[in-house]
Amino acid sequence: MSIIFGVDPGIARTGYGVIEEKMGKVTPLTYGCITTKPDDQSKRLMIVHHELEKLLRIYQPACVAVEQLYFARNTTTALIVSEARGVILLTAALLDMPVFEYTPNQVKLAVTGSGSADKHQMQTMVARLLGLHSIPKPDDAADGLAVALCHIQMHRGGR
Amino acid sequence: MSIIFGVDPGIARTGYGVIEEKMGKVTPLTYGCITTKPDDQSKRLMIVHHELEKLLRIYQPACVAVEQLYFARNTTTALIVSEARGVILLTAALLDMPVFEYTPNQVKLAVTGSGSADKHQMQTMVARLLGLHSIPKPDDAADGLAVALCHIQMHRGGR
Repeated sequence: MSIIFGVDPGIARTGYGVIEEKMGKVTPLTYGCITTKPDDQSKRLMIVHHELEKLLRIYQPACVAVEQLYFARNTTTALIVSEARGVILLTAALLDMPVFEYTPNQVKLAVTGSGSADKHQMQTMVARLLGLHSIPKPDDAADGLAVALCHIQMHRGGR
Repeated sequence: MSIIFGVDPGIARTGYGVIEEKMGKVTPLTYGCITTKPDDQSKRLMIVHHELEKLLRIYQPACVAVEQLYFARNTTTALIVSEARGVILLTAALLDMPVFEYTPNQVKLAVTGSGSADKHQMQTMVARLLGLHSIPKPDDAADGLAVALCHIQMHRGGR
């Protein structure tokens, strides 16, 4: 049995999804979104750190899977989201939890079988793989679950 | 009297400089560079966090001045340095220290009077303003001192 914590980094919205894998069966334990309102960047980063730390302490995952940044057209946004990403990596490391990083393409490929899947296809597959009756909301939470599923899939392939 | 902690973020090398301002006179208390060797990004971020935290606890600055990212040609590097920058902002915020951010142009302008000053001119002025007999080494440390000087200069102007 192992618990995987998936994170889709953001500054306003960081999606997360926690999945338990047991004998090849995957079950979602929780999913959601850490939100911060416009404020000093350092204060927003502190909220991301504290909220994530709380969740990691509760679920005690075997590892944390974090999505890498996709090359945004808006580079200023990419830099700000990277700051949140750095805080997410640090928070996991401070709790001694191994971190794995996956590109958006790896996540798409692992979850849908196609690197060019669209958002809806991704969300549908996340729901299907986890046996959920509807698509997890908000979108960021579904993205967090997708990263965790990607880690499980990649790990299986690696055996 | 107030102590300003300046930081020039990086992942391999984060420069810092600590300056005391007393009755309009500025004195360097220390300067140096936090270095990390190639490793998992989360481990490198943890070193930056721990080393910076140690320094901030020793010097108890009134505030932390952090340089903003300059638009690198190499965007992958910019994203990785932004992760370190996020960790730096978080580390100051966790210690309840106010954070101020300055663009490279603001730093140049404040230290040399020109937004287009070159590296050598910057370093020469840092040494001159701080009454140092030689240019502070390594370069990253001089950059950290420059950010702290910039904060002092901007603050004076703001009164």
